[in-house]
Amino acid sequence: MKNEEKVTKEELIEKAKIPAKNALKMHPFYRGKIMTIPRCTIRSFQDFGIWYSPGVAAPCKEIAKDKEKVYEYTHKWNTVAVVSDGTRVLGLGNIGPEAGMPVMEGKALLFKYLGGVDAWPLCIGPDLNAEKIIELVKLIQPTYGGINLEDIEKPKCFKILDTLRKDPDMKIPVWHDDQQGTACVTLAGLINALKIINKKINEIKVTFIGSGASNVAIGRLCFTAGVNPKTATYVDSKGILSRSRDYHDKYKRDLAELTNSADLEGDTKQALKGSDVCISLSRNGPDVIKQDWISGMADDAIVFACANPIPEIWPWDAKAAGAKIVATGRSDFPNQVNNSLGFPGIFRGTLDVRASTITDEMCIAAAMEIAQVQEDKGLSVNQIVPNMDDWEIFPREAVAVGMKAQEQGIARKKWTKNALYEHAEKIIKDARNCTKLLMDKNFIPEFTDYEE
Amino acid sequence: MKNEEKVTKEELIEKAKIPAKNALKMHPFYRGKIMTIPRCTIRSFQDFGIWYSPGVAAPCKEIAKDKEKVYEYTHKWNTVAVVSDGTRVLGLGNIGPEAGMPVMEGKALLFKYLGGVDAWPLCIGPDLNAEKIIELVKLIQPTYGGINLEDIEKPKCFKILDTLRKDPDMKIPVWHDDQQGTACVTLAGLINALKIINKKINEIKVTFIGSGASNVAIGRLCFTAGVNPKTATYVDSKGILSRSRDYHDKYKRDLAELTNSADLEGDTKQALKGSDVCISLSRNGPDVIKQDWISGMADDAIVFACANPIPEIWPWDAKAAGAKIVATGRSDFPNQVNNSLGFPGIFRGTLDVRASTITDEMCIAAAMEIAQVQEDKGLSVNQIVPNMDDWEIFPREAVAVGMKAQEQGIARKKWTKNALYEHAEKIIKDARNCTKLLMDKNFIPEFTDYEE
Repeated sequence: MKNEEKVTKEELIEKAKIPAKNALKMHPFYRGKIMTIPRCTIRSFQDFGIWYSPGVAAPCKEIAKDKEKVYEYTHKWNTVAVVSDGTRVLGLGNIGPEAGMPVMEGKALLFKYLGGVDAWPLCIGPDLNAEKIIELVKLIQPTYGGINLEDIEKPKCFKILDTLRKDPDMKIPVWHDDQQGTACVTLAGLINALKIINKKINEIKVTFIGSGASNVAIGRLCFTAGVNPKTATYVDSKGILSRSRDYHDKYKRDLAELTNSADLEGDTKQALKGSDVCISLSRNGPDVIKQDWISGMADDAIVFACANPIPEIWPWDAKAAGAKIVATGRSDFPNQVNNSLGFPGIFRGTLDVRASTITDEMCIAAAMEIAQVQEDKGLSVNQIVPNMDDWEIFPREAVAVGMKAQEQGIARKKWTKNALYEHAEKIIKDARNCTKLLMDKNFIPEFTDYEE
Repeated sequence: MKNEEKVTKEELIEKAKIPAKNALKMHPFYRGKIMTIPRCTIRSFQDFGIWYSPGVAAPCKEIAKDKEKVYEYTHKWNTVAVVSDGTRVLGLGNIGPEAGMPVMEGKALLFKYLGGVDAWPLCIGPDLNAEKIIELVKLIQPTYGGINLEDIEKPKCFKILDTLRKDPDMKIPVWHDDQQGTACVTLAGLINALKIINKKINEIKVTFIGSGASNVAIGRLCFTAGVNPKTATYVDSKGILSRSRDYHDKYKRDLAELTNSADLEGDTKQALKGSDVCISLSRNGPDVIKQDWISGMADDAIVFACANPIPEIWPWDAKAAGAKIVATGRSDFPNQVNNSLGFPGIFRGTLDVRASTITDEMCIAAAMEIAQVQEDKGLSVNQIVPNMDDWEIFPREAVAVGMKAQEQGIARKKWTKNALYEHAEKIIKDARNCTKLLMDKNFIPEFTDYEE
């Protein structure tokens, strides 16, 4: 269990400087976070006659006859492109495709280490509109088993994801982690929080603070999972989203139509009054959410204060004001809502059953399984989601997602539950053990000059 | 030295079935030829706070201030995209991007194993014109250190390469291996063959048989290296390229202008009469080139019969007809003109000095160094080019290319000759030793069911 000692904003900012300092030393030391390595045997140079000309012509001809065989004869089955134009990188805004590279490479590293997936960054641009990005993703489709969109600004990111998910020509899954990944892990936390306070998902009143890509996606997934949109409200910088306001953003207008059937108007305080759950992804705090607003919520209030790096309200302040359960985006506070709990296992399962898309139902299955992993270990107000180092999350998620895809009829490969688990477990363990081996043998050299 | 026992076409075709059989068994066994693996240390999950959020923001901000730092903070410095639309894969024609994947993945494998370069396939399409491919390559530029175009049909491939090489917005080198790579290694063979027969490059008469992308590129490079275009001739399926013929292909028209100043007309026999060198990349033989045509060549004739898999004339037949030196594309005959001798070392040197392009002069420097490697080991009529397993070719080429780029003022990093060699040697040895380690430890499993 995480330490819940109070800290000040200044202390946290000071503490955050340490990973930043190490990052500035270690990035130029390693000059990259992933590399390629052969997957196949090379006994001698003669083997290149099998892997390359002339032998390689034989598998090429087989694929020319039946495209689907590209999954058997190449690494496509296990590959993901991490596509970004660098327009909304972390909290840094539009810093461009080159400056986004360290994040995309880090994502590829997480894909491999946590999910056994061979991901490669693809930073594109500059200055691409939604149509260009959609076109490019479609053009690279032959190469990859899946597409992970990342750090693309809204409203462009909505259009790109929605268009590609609906496009009958896209035979491979397209995922936007800032939308679907965040939504999945937040939903997992919500599911467990509701178990603890003993409320039903279809009876709760939820207030969403912030209408960025992530929070919009969280709402969408929550509504599919049972949250009643009519009693839910969204709040942006101008107040509660209601039908009476004007929007130039189609997505906000749709949200205003869908939610807040009572036509509530007013500010965040007003929106939170009587709410069971507050899901905030707005701006760095503390004190963006006030204690007296939390006091106005229903009993056993659940608060997700997920602005990064400083939550909209300190967990201890929220609790003092009456919140029962508080989650944030920070690893050093209890209940971290961490995207890395989601995408590696979700893609593992999706790729293994060769699903053509990742449906909301598959996301919900993943969220329920993440929640179940923690329930199996023991639930408490400070332990609603597992940690990244809970080994079994990823294969369990892969199974949940893969079985759901098969049930929904969008999987092109059949697996039993056990076989799917064993496969996922082996491939993830191999990734970790292989990394350790390269470190032990100094192919990944040691770095010693750490800041502590 | 290779065995020059005579074989029949039928025997060769039978023999070629063995790598094809093994390829069909081994491709689905390994399901891919390359994978990703971490390049950086992962001591614990805490390190993800350095490699990903929050620490990663620091290198992102540095790159946002100075784009060039992407080479220090990410793996861009060592990466190449192997880009193909699958329109001219090996001798198989337009089989599409999926069917091209086994070749592009094989190429990525060679890049790593021979040159220590992290290459990743990027098969795109279907049905892209030159403009779309040019646009796409420009869009992915932020991600990669270089672009290797592969197996793209002509005349599209000429336009793509020429446009991208000239484009001031392309800050990374673009290479079309079927053009420049083949040209470089053929020129290396020619240089050494001329040493043996003691003729000067600017005094020889060369006949090019076939006007495909590779042979056009070989001509271009040979002319830059000193071969006199005025005495050279090209022959296509309709005969000698001369000014009097009509062409709908701009590239052929340009060739007809440049070469054959005597306005020779006629067939291949006519063209070869009195030639010192025949460079043929036309169609599978044997007997596409007749013995009496060879007899009509000058004394000490040099014949490159490089159709794959069956040369246009058997080496023993060419020699019986008077050829002094014969090279082919086959690894089981003497003097294999093998692209794999070129691109891994050329890219190694180009990436290390961070050259913005690969000039013809850099190609010629590479060709001369490949030739020198063999001269150092001993020249003979059956040993004009080294083998792929001559370890030192690749770092030596890297040095030759890297020093030439610095001399030409297109390198963004300065290196001494020694440092460049040591760096290239280490990075290539690491790739090979790392592969061996993964095989020894069974991360790359053994395959036992070989056809012999």
